[in-house]
Amino acid sequence: MIFRQLFEQVSSTYTYILADENTREAVFIDPVLDKIPQYLQLLNELSLKLCYALDTHVHADHITALGTLREKTQCVTVHGAGSKASCVSRFVEDGEKILFGSHELQAISTPGHTIESFCYYLPKKERGLLFSGDTILIRGTGRTDFQGGDAGQQYDSIHKKLLSLPASTFVYPGHDYKGMTVSTIEEEKTHNPRLQVKDRQKYIKLMSELNLPDPKMMDVAVPANLGCGIDVSSDMD
Amino acid sequence: MIFRQLFEQVSSTYTYILADENTREAVFIDPVLDKIPQYLQLLNELSLKLCYALDTHVHADHITALGTLREKTQCVTVHGAGSKASCVSRFVEDGEKILFGSHELQAISTPGHTIESFCYYLPKKERGLLFSGDTILIRGTGRTDFQGGDAGQQYDSIHKKLLSLPASTFVYPGHDYKGMTVSTIEEEKTHNPRLQVKDRQKYIKLMSELNLPDPKMMDVAVPANLGCGIDVSSDMD
Repeated sequence: MIFRQLFEQVSSTYTYILADENTREAVFIDPVLDKIPQYLQLLNELSLKLCYALDTHVHADHITALGTLREKTQCVTVHGAGSKASCVSRFVEDGEKILFGSHELQAISTPGHTIESFCYYLPKKERGLLFSGDTILIRGTGRTDFQGGDAGQQYDSIHKKLLSLPASTFVYPGHDYKGMTVSTIEEEKTHNPRLQVKDRQKYIKLMSELNLPDPKMMDVAVPANLGCGIDVSSDMD
Repeated sequence: MIFRQLFEQVSSTYTYILADENTREAVFIDPVLDKIPQYLQLLNELSLKLCYALDTHVHADHITALGTLREKTQCVTVHGAGSKASCVSRFVEDGEKILFGSHELQAISTPGHTIESFCYYLPKKERGLLFSGDTILIRGTGRTDFQGGDAGQQYDSIHKKLLSLPASTFVYPGHDYKGMTVSTIEEEKTHNPRLQVKDRQKYIKLMSELNLPDPKMMDVAVPANLGCGIDVSSDMD
């Protein structure tokens, strides 16, 4: 399998490309609008055909490339069930599979950071990769104070679902602000300070006391992302 | 093998950690002074023992962590033969091997970006990883206009040595300024604009006409790095 991690510096967002080496079918996870020229060039250079572009959730800190990628490549855009984003071609349910070539990504419903947050898992029989969006960050978890966020739900998503994946699973987050690129389930279980809070009520209290400022781009990004970044893209043309 | 890529945002530097899963012996490639607290925490969390810290060359854009890592961990600091840096414990020759656990990194002398530039190669029987420093960058090559840089030597280093590695070899550069994290020898052979210049004299001419400004930190970084970042580190304590 072809696998690439890309970094967008303004919002410290990680975007992932997965592709089948034989059929050249590709999937993008969390692509960023401003990076579309780079993505199209890379697809062309690697002779890949973009089949799916998916967001782990409706982002508040950057504008998604989904709508424009659908327009330019005819890919299928994917969000988790419950997302209110327009121009999404396919809404996946918990456990549903996204197939590309001989590979599959499993959708895992993980509400908490936002109400429609999903993670995606490439099973261990291949490599064991978890694309954890903003649910598990490296040594952190995504905030739960807007867009239907719910710390109790996030606790359940993490402890009942994600932490039951094999310990060796690589964790590829939606962001990192300190230059880390990857972790593992075992590492996060052991060293992620927020995952050491084993009591659900204490976790809810911890998350309620973070008092974080709103993301800088939130007022622009959330409405734009509910439209898959299309209107913004038109303005940019 | 344990493998991690870390990113330092100020100078867009990539640092690499390689370690043996059983013996826990670790190697750092191109560590950055400001990131030492992160490195020490990660070494501790992953139960690794740092055996070697090496620089691909004397950097002009960031200050190395080598000297301080040697002080704090008693690791062996490594530069390529010809480097004038002090407090280097071991100078490796072309073809020499650095052993950690059951793994080996092969030193490849690749003068051109600077006179003492080396690349390091983890052979294909393992994964086939090239740590290309500033010799091959993703879709680019390192400038050759200071610190004994020589475009003709760089052409030879790339065309006679690096491009003869297996096509599937992953190329992990010393920097990327556009959010790319990895490439392959095949990809660079085909899509790196500078490697499409097949004539040595034309390559020398191309590199002589870049007219790049000096790196912002050059006046500080080069003298500091010749001292392995030690004096700077003391000032920071």
